[in-house]
Amino acid sequence: MSGYLERLARSSIRAGSRLCIGIDPDLATLPDGYRSVARLADWVRLLVDATVGHAAAYKVNIAFFEALGWEGMRAAEQVRGIVPADVPLVVDAKRGDIGSTVAAQARALYDVLGADAVTASPYLGIGALAPLLERVDGFTYLLCRTSNPESAEFQELPVEGRAGGVPLYLRVADAAAARPEARAGRIGLVVGATAGDDLAVLRARVPTLPFLVPGIGAQGGDVQATVRHGGARDGVAGGSVGGGLLVNVGRGISDGVADAADPVAHLRARAAEWGAHLAILAR
Amino acid sequence: MSGYLERLARSSIRAGSRLCIGIDPDLATLPDGYRSVARLADWVRLLVDATVGHAAAYKVNIAFFEALGWEGMRAAEQVRGIVPADVPLVVDAKRGDIGSTVAAQARALYDVLGADAVTASPYLGIGALAPLLERVDGFTYLLCRTSNPESAEFQELPVEGRAGGVPLYLRVADAAAARPEARAGRIGLVVGATAGDDLAVLRARVPTLPFLVPGIGAQGGDVQATVRHGGARDGVAGGSVGGGLLVNVGRGISDGVADAADPVAHLRARAAEWGAHLAILAR
Repeated sequence: MSGYLERLARSSIRAGSRLCIGIDPDLATLPDGYRSVARLADWVRLLVDATVGHAAAYKVNIAFFEALGWEGMRAAEQVRGIVPADVPLVVDAKRGDIGSTVAAQARALYDVLGADAVTASPYLGIGALAPLLERVDGFTYLLCRTSNPESAEFQELPVEGRAGGVPLYLRVADAAAARPEARAGRIGLVVGATAGDDLAVLRARVPTLPFLVPGIGAQGGDVQATVRHGGARDGVAGGSVGGGLLVNVGRGISDGVADAADPVAHLRARAAEWGAHLAILAR
Repeated sequence: MSGYLERLARSSIRAGSRLCIGIDPDLATLPDGYRSVARLADWVRLLVDATVGHAAAYKVNIAFFEALGWEGMRAAEQVRGIVPADVPLVVDAKRGDIGSTVAAQARALYDVLGADAVTASPYLGIGALAPLLERVDGFTYLLCRTSNPESAEFQELPVEGRAGGVPLYLRVADAAAARPEARAGRIGLVVGATAGDDLAVLRARVPTLPFLVPGIGAQGGDVQATVRHGGARDGVAGGSVGGGLLVNVGRGISDGVADAADPVAHLRARAAEWGAHLAILAR
């Protein structure tokens, strides 16, 4: 079993859930006293300390740190040290470029930010992501069917497949499943919970690939369908607890925290609630 | 005429060329004394001072700064102040995500880094890029047909089009050309010079869209075909000098500088040579 999937399985068992907690700090939505880049790492520490008992993993949305300039990035570099070492950290940056640039992106994500897993875009070809895929302790979640309302424009386009036309996102999934990294348990897919039946279709088509599912909570995705169809059924992840499924909730936990009398209690209660929705023993 | 295309036309006339100079600092390839993040901004200043007479624009490859951590990003924030104000700065980051995250990316690229134009990925749908496209002083180069060897995997897949099957990259080009930002001169395409006839095919299909062409120099792209077919022939950019074409050369200028007796002279000579290849009056 690969390093990342094994670490994820252990932390999922400990948390009792498939919950990945999003770290997407928008300063305007934070409690009084935390609305400055100088307090950003303290905010992350508060969020993690309040929720870590329910988190199988954390996912940093790096854009929210980049928007705060180099001081934001300095805070982002502290996140790996704030999240306990045995809880995986997904760095969500959706990178992808020509190979020499992806090599620089891999250094930024793994060596600078300490990622356990990353997200990446397939548009330049999966082979272009080699410097990410070659990280044997890492893991790459490839964008496949995303959770945003505009995602159908290209992802649902019918392309010629082995057995007639298939939507582009299924072709991306096929290509990911055919990679050597799939057999090694080092590649999975980003599949939005808002994509309706597409999640079930994808699971049937690529039974071995672990899914990272955003779009739950603020974006209104379907929790039950996600839990029912989200876990891998075969391969490395199929043999692991929860099928390697990771369901991200960001705003669903942190929304409203600025108005909460007790921010820690607010975050902990929301994380416990989502942890229960996504409990491993409850399926 | 849009702000960015007008600024680009003026700087192209001043430089007499379509040359965009890449700022892709890999410390190991820099001259003695510049191989540390503390000297990174000084390196950029040396590169810009040596080459600015030949540059229609500069393109920062942000991954090379990210790979150096927050100190690298602090240097990246200095680049806009180092490049003269009347020379456009393209920030090449290939961003794209769900809308709320793209809003954060737009702040990072335009407000923090001072971009005049940015690159973005179409995979989540062009509409998802709204926070970038809405910057009326900005410009978005959408990934279309990229210069890397793995790009055909999805970009060349035949998808159903208005008149039978077309490769995905042409469908992306069609979608970009149909956007209101195309009529306003605020969207263009990234088209690799290594893509052979695809550049001519694209130019015929979308005569109005400005192209940013990487892949010249180290990647071996075809200069003559790029200059012949690269310029827009209609619309806002078609009426501007050079058709809004911008051809990026990065390693083709900076390679070998570590071994040069006089780095400034080395860079200036290479920039002058590429400027001549890409001269506007020579076409």
